[in-house]
Amino acid sequence: MKIASYKSGRDGLLMIVDKDLKTCCAASHIAPTLQAALDDWANIAPQLEQEYEQLCKGTHSAAEPFDTSRCAAPLPRSYHWADGSAYVTHVELVRKARGAELPASFWEDPLVYMGASDAFIGPQDPVEVESEDWGIDFEAEVVIVTDDVPAGVTVGQAASHIKLIGLVNDVSLRNLIPAELAKQFGFYQSKPWTAFTPVLVTPDELGEAWDGSRLHLPMRTTYNGELVGAPNAGQDMTFDFPTLIAHCAKSRSLMTGTVIGSGTVSNVGSEAGSCCLAEIRCLETIRDGKPSTPFMSFGDRIHIEMLDAQNKSIFGAIDQVIVRYTAPKE
Amino acid sequence: MKIASYKSGRDGLLMIVDKDLKTCCAASHIAPTLQAALDDWANIAPQLEQEYEQLCKGTHSAAEPFDTSRCAAPLPRSYHWADGSAYVTHVELVRKARGAELPASFWEDPLVYMGASDAFIGPQDPVEVESEDWGIDFEAEVVIVTDDVPAGVTVGQAASHIKLIGLVNDVSLRNLIPAELAKQFGFYQSKPWTAFTPVLVTPDELGEAWDGSRLHLPMRTTYNGELVGAPNAGQDMTFDFPTLIAHCAKSRSLMTGTVIGSGTVSNVGSEAGSCCLAEIRCLETIRDGKPSTPFMSFGDRIHIEMLDAQNKSIFGAIDQVIVRYTAPKE
Repeated sequence: MKIASYKSGRDGLLMIVDKDLKTCCAASHIAPTLQAALDDWANIAPQLEQEYEQLCKGTHSAAEPFDTSRCAAPLPRSYHWADGSAYVTHVELVRKARGAELPASFWEDPLVYMGASDAFIGPQDPVEVESEDWGIDFEAEVVIVTDDVPAGVTVGQAASHIKLIGLVNDVSLRNLIPAELAKQFGFYQSKPWTAFTPVLVTPDELGEAWDGSRLHLPMRTTYNGELVGAPNAGQDMTFDFPTLIAHCAKSRSLMTGTVIGSGTVSNVGSEAGSCCLAEIRCLETIRDGKPSTPFMSFGDRIHIEMLDAQNKSIFGAIDQVIVRYTAPKE
Repeated sequence: MKIASYKSGRDGLLMIVDKDLKTCCAASHIAPTLQAALDDWANIAPQLEQEYEQLCKGTHSAAEPFDTSRCAAPLPRSYHWADGSAYVTHVELVRKARGAELPASFWEDPLVYMGASDAFIGPQDPVEVESEDWGIDFEAEVVIVTDDVPAGVTVGQAASHIKLIGLVNDVSLRNLIPAELAKQFGFYQSKPWTAFTPVLVTPDELGEAWDGSRLHLPMRTTYNGELVGAPNAGQDMTFDFPTLIAHCAKSRSLMTGTVIGSGTVSNVGSEAGSCCLAEIRCLETIRDGKPSTPFMSFGDRIHIEMLDAQNKSIFGAIDQVIVRYTAPKE
């Protein structure tokens, strides 16, 4: 099943989308919003699935063309956004570029930070940033959405709590990061926006590409029209999603609708390219002594998508432009 | 006006409570939940105020006794919980106890971390923790709730976005903190639960104790029946609430219902006691070379309350017991 939210109010309007992302229908008679659906997922999901089947067969009476330009994030606001840094090879590269050692524990203990979940943005929403000096960057990631997860869940139990899967662009302000990391309290101002693909999908949609823990497909990241990365998201993911869930639920339960991210997808050696400019700049630094690729400018475009074995888009595309934000006058 | 939520489903049932915390009435005919009210606060608040006036005059036809044992957190789940560390004197003390210097920037740049907001707990809810070895502690804090705040808001503009004020117990697992801070990604497993007073109040309820930026009253913190701290929350708050809001909104807007915390209330010299065991232990370490007060044990009770000039409780009391959590079997 594939799920979207059309823009409407603060929480969007829940939509069911067919497998080919061609048609959709409103699901508001079943649940008004995705959060409402997740709040009672065991009962709601089968009802949504029924309509999804009709939609895919072309027999749904209320089917209409699916318009990604109308999409909000599938979950326009969430109560919990925990973003991991599960591709440790990426973290190692960043450290190497600045001549720092990676602590050995980083290979055993997941890195996770709590992100801002009160306003996830839609796949074609502009990314508003006040200043290019902040070092604007994209990060292409895989995310999962859980139902209620009890505290102390084991890795073995955790996989069954993955209800939906999608992609995000975790916008990062690189030049604000060093000062925030130095304070040790995590990212705050440096991670303002997270944009989602038009749809989230249930794990069964992914066939063999989803092994219950990792998504084995290239993360196609296109920057100003040029494919800059297509590393395989199933490869070199040191901490898989069940491991991230168990980490997040170590000392407390997680409530339904919790979104957990993989962190920037990255493969050892970066031969298939990179999913953020920071990594490209680190490779340049290691090779040339300094980076040559600048961070993003106003007007720059970032496109993130994943194709299945038949080259069909699974989640639809994130396709965003960076724009200058001007604060309202006092 | 004073606002509570009785336990009901995931978001509670919105209640209006009289000034003396004696009677209440359901507000569900105006807004089903506090988040729903905050989503349209400019329109909803005046309607709630009308009923509040009747309740305080004793003329409300549906008034019933207010039962704090039925209280959830006023906002049982929120989309954004940004917790500051605004009493820098406390941070300095913690550093001093471990022989570390406080960076000068800590006096100028607020410390804020993103906390878990998907399950705020009620004033009398037990605090479930798996192990005493994690170093269980309380933290008594002041919090404010905002409406929608535009990115780039100035400190001068920020005060008008403070809609509700309350107290919290930010449960901290001290022995999990060092490893998390070392990873620089902020608190995650070490800050599992945040409990709220029975009511949140509008700023006008606080009279002269609220100067628009700080709450000038003692934070009464009672541990196992003994008053361990009553520092004045208006004193030594290096970063006031408008400054914290402006910090949080530097690179992005904040959505209505954002909760911002002061961090543990603390006064220079700690002569009026402390609002967390960590501070007591730091004082002992500085004095004796090592701490003598242990962290909390199962069965321990923490009571947090603030009284007005007439010794009346403003927000009602947080009154919680620590209990052992056992994870469900696989």
